[in-house]
Amino acid sequence: MAVSPYQQLEQEWRRLHAFRGALSLLRWDAAVMMPRGAADVRGEQLAALETECHAVLTSPKTTRLLERARANSQSLDDWQQANLREMQRQRDHAIAIPATLIGRLAKAAARAEAAWAEARADNDFARFAPHLEEQVALVRDKAALLGQALNLPPYDALMDEYSPGTGTADLDALIKALARRLQSLIREVEAAQAADTPPPVSGKYTVARQRALVVDVMKALGFPFDRGRLDESLHPFTEGVAGDIRVTTRYDQADPMAGLLGALHECGHAMYDFGVPPAWRDQPVGRDRGMALEESQSLLLEMVIGRGRAFAQWLQPLLVKHLAVTGPEWEAEALYRRLTRARRGLIRVESDELSYPLHIQQRYEIEKKLLAGQLAVKDLPAVWDAGMEQRFGRRPANLTEGCLQDVHWALGLFGYFPSYLLGVVIAAQLWEGLRAAQPGIDEDIARGEFTRLFDWLRTEVHGWGAKLPVKELVQQASGQPLGAGALLRYLGHKYLES
Amino acid sequence: MAVSPYQQLEQEWRRLHAFRGALSLLRWDAAVMMPRGAADVRGEQLAALETECHAVLTSPKTTRLLERARANSQSLDDWQQANLREMQRQRDHAIAIPATLIGRLAKAAARAEAAWAEARADNDFARFAPHLEEQVALVRDKAALLGQALNLPPYDALMDEYSPGTGTADLDALIKALARRLQSLIREVEAAQAADTPPPVSGKYTVARQRALVVDVMKALGFPFDRGRLDESLHPFTEGVAGDIRVTTRYDQADPMAGLLGALHECGHAMYDFGVPPAWRDQPVGRDRGMALEESQSLLLEMVIGRGRAFAQWLQPLLVKHLAVTGPEWEAEALYRRLTRARRGLIRVESDELSYPLHIQQRYEIEKKLLAGQLAVKDLPAVWDAGMEQRFGRRPANLTEGCLQDVHWALGLFGYFPSYLLGVVIAAQLWEGLRAAQPGIDEDIARGEFTRLFDWLRTEVHGWGAKLPVKELVQQASGQPLGAGALLRYLGHKYLES
Repeated sequence: MAVSPYQQLEQEWRRLHAFRGALSLLRWDAAVMMPRGAADVRGEQLAALETECHAVLTSPKTTRLLERARANSQSLDDWQQANLREMQRQRDHAIAIPATLIGRLAKAAARAEAAWAEARADNDFARFAPHLEEQVALVRDKAALLGQALNLPPYDALMDEYSPGTGTADLDALIKALARRLQSLIREVEAAQAADTPPPVSGKYTVARQRALVVDVMKALGFPFDRGRLDESLHPFTEGVAGDIRVTTRYDQADPMAGLLGALHECGHAMYDFGVPPAWRDQPVGRDRGMALEESQSLLLEMVIGRGRAFAQWLQPLLVKHLAVTGPEWEAEALYRRLTRARRGLIRVESDELSYPLHIQQRYEIEKKLLAGQLAVKDLPAVWDAGMEQRFGRRPANLTEGCLQDVHWALGLFGYFPSYLLGVVIAAQLWEGLRAAQPGIDEDIARGEFTRLFDWLRTEVHGWGAKLPVKELVQQASGQPLGAGALLRYLGHKYLES
Repeated sequence: MAVSPYQQLEQEWRRLHAFRGALSLLRWDAAVMMPRGAADVRGEQLAALETECHAVLTSPKTTRLLERARANSQSLDDWQQANLREMQRQRDHAIAIPATLIGRLAKAAARAEAAWAEARADNDFARFAPHLEEQVALVRDKAALLGQALNLPPYDALMDEYSPGTGTADLDALIKALARRLQSLIREVEAAQAADTPPPVSGKYTVARQRALVVDVMKALGFPFDRGRLDESLHPFTEGVAGDIRVTTRYDQADPMAGLLGALHECGHAMYDFGVPPAWRDQPVGRDRGMALEESQSLLLEMVIGRGRAFAQWLQPLLVKHLAVTGPEWEAEALYRRLTRARRGLIRVESDELSYPLHIQQRYEIEKKLLAGQLAVKDLPAVWDAGMEQRFGRRPANLTEGCLQDVHWALGLFGYFPSYLLGVVIAAQLWEGLRAAQPGIDEDIARGEFTRLFDWLRTEVHGWGAKLPVKELVQQASGQPLGAGALLRYLGHKYLES
């Protein structure tokens, strides 16, 4: 029996899926297990597999099969048609960028990351500046090529890679609705919290005890330890493919919530990756719907739920059990008040829910200007510090809490930060939709019962894989178009009314 | 500048090396880290990468490049010429076996391994017999095809895959020289040891303490922990590529020597893999010279050195330090006497140095008959038990200590056992050559000083990579042609005279 062009494409993508699973394991191992001296060898392995994936995506054979399958697409069902669209999307993105440019970006990233670490350590921007200039020039080329191929403005083309179908119009509208309102909200919350400092904590908690706590929490969430692992790494991350998901966290002996919240964030990613439609797990349509949706899941678990009152109520006896904590500072309400304390921090990854969107706004506006040539790299520190002063009323004391705090630009990740803001917004919309559809979800959480939560997420988000564009999926799941309203309602209620 | 066919081949093999490194890591992870439910996903990844490697080796492009490079090989230096020979060898082995047969062998192996485990557990040979019949039939096809392609008798063609340039003539000559002599030597040693039972040991030793001991020993050997790891697995093994070698061992709480000797064995492999010529590490000529040489290195470290008196003298204070052992049973001489006790065991992997070659003889003779159709699978248990009785004067009590003790045949590994015997013989030859070239090596070992040992091995064995055929390398390193003399001298001296 003849194998149709579409079926041949599925076979090619099955191979790609296996290669990508291998790549993911190589990355996980590099961060968690690999001896330090093996970085060069691992780099060769990663490059060889990435080159192979790129070769499959851009081969004349794949292009020909896609043409023939499209010509006959009326015979496909709607999942197959969506799968074909995603194949075409991956191929179009891959073929738009020549392999030489990909190679130059990868090499520049390796050099820039090293220079970034040194510049941070020495608080010396000049050390990093030429590398950032190189990355800006290379990414500008990449954005122009992608934009031509996808018929999008350059920056929108970069965003499309991470969160399909979203662009600067969406970001600009969200920021317009959020920025001023958040700045005043922060002041109101600070005033309300001023008279009521939660009791501080002290003590040391071994990694072994913290890990046992995190494992208990993950089991309650339904993380399947027979198809996944929890390990430690310098920065928490999630790797793997459905069927073998590896999450990591990082423990702080003085602050047991740091490791737990890191693990919750990664579990949000992991539960999404476990929840994709099983029948499509080795096909493009069976993957997650990009970074904005991924971040919505991790932030929903870490921020909305993990820093919620119901979760603190459930968690409190687990803290007693695993860490033997005692005293009024470990009562559920004190815990919750610490987790919702407005901090107005200058560091994005340590910031609270109220200021996080402003951090993204700052990066979004600056990186657009860098790429458009409206901001010279040498002026970045001054512009950064002025932006922070305007938003938070404080200036960074050094580059590590200033414009060198994130590694993204060193790695050439421009157009990626918007996914974080989209993720925050979508998380709030999903939470609103979930509470409307499942009244009593807070009571579930307070009992450590997460079945209804993940059932709903699987039905409304995970199980759709990459079938719909981001905004359509969000509208369908939350009952509202993508917008800032739910986030403002959620923050106002949580930080001022309850 | 034009890239020559030979240079293009080096590029292709650089890719292959990267893929094989990835494959090796996927296998290591599957045995050491992977969650149990991920076996199917991992199987897909391994199959995709193995298929890709096979496709590169057998592509018309590779064949064409090899032809053109051979036609111009007078321009290559001797390492390049050896490299080209190894490329051709790999290609000839790969192209001789159709991908369909490889697929059938892999699937049959997966089924047979599961049936083997069940048959062992139930002591029910009939459960395994049809799977072994299938494997024998498939391997017979493979051997015939390989033999035609390589112009070798079928069984010799299988041996050539594992230890290039060795064949049944070598094995038959070694067995003729060894079998009878060893049977009488065992009786002599048992008589000599009868009056002198070493004191038994008792106690429990935690894995953490045993691991610390093993790490200390590995550091003294020079195992570079910045380019390798030590972990635990069900069966000890070594995976990885030069630059990132992973060894495992298995600890027995009641017997700290088990985990240590397992680690020594694997360190023999690892030090070989670390010692290959760095300039050629991603090329075929920069790999080890096959299984017989690999086993010679692991057995040299585990058996010759690890069960030697000098090593016991050095090890004794380390045992005291890490395991807090006390009493006369932990004196160095008592330790050495236990490690050299003749046991005449029926299980190969637990057998002593005296009987090990006889175990291999039994497997070699039986597997040749199975493939030649001179022995039916159904008669295997009876023939096995008769062979053991003839060799060791005892019959196995069940299949687990009988003909189902090894997994090799279930996996289709025929022609592999000879490498173990060759390894024993070569280890003894190298040891004789080493002691002649480096007098005082025993004193080194007794002080925990292994530099001269590994310097010599690197110069004479490791650093040659795959440049020479097995027998030529052995002759050059030991000063003697491959033969049983050194092994008999070594065993006679160790077990009767010292």
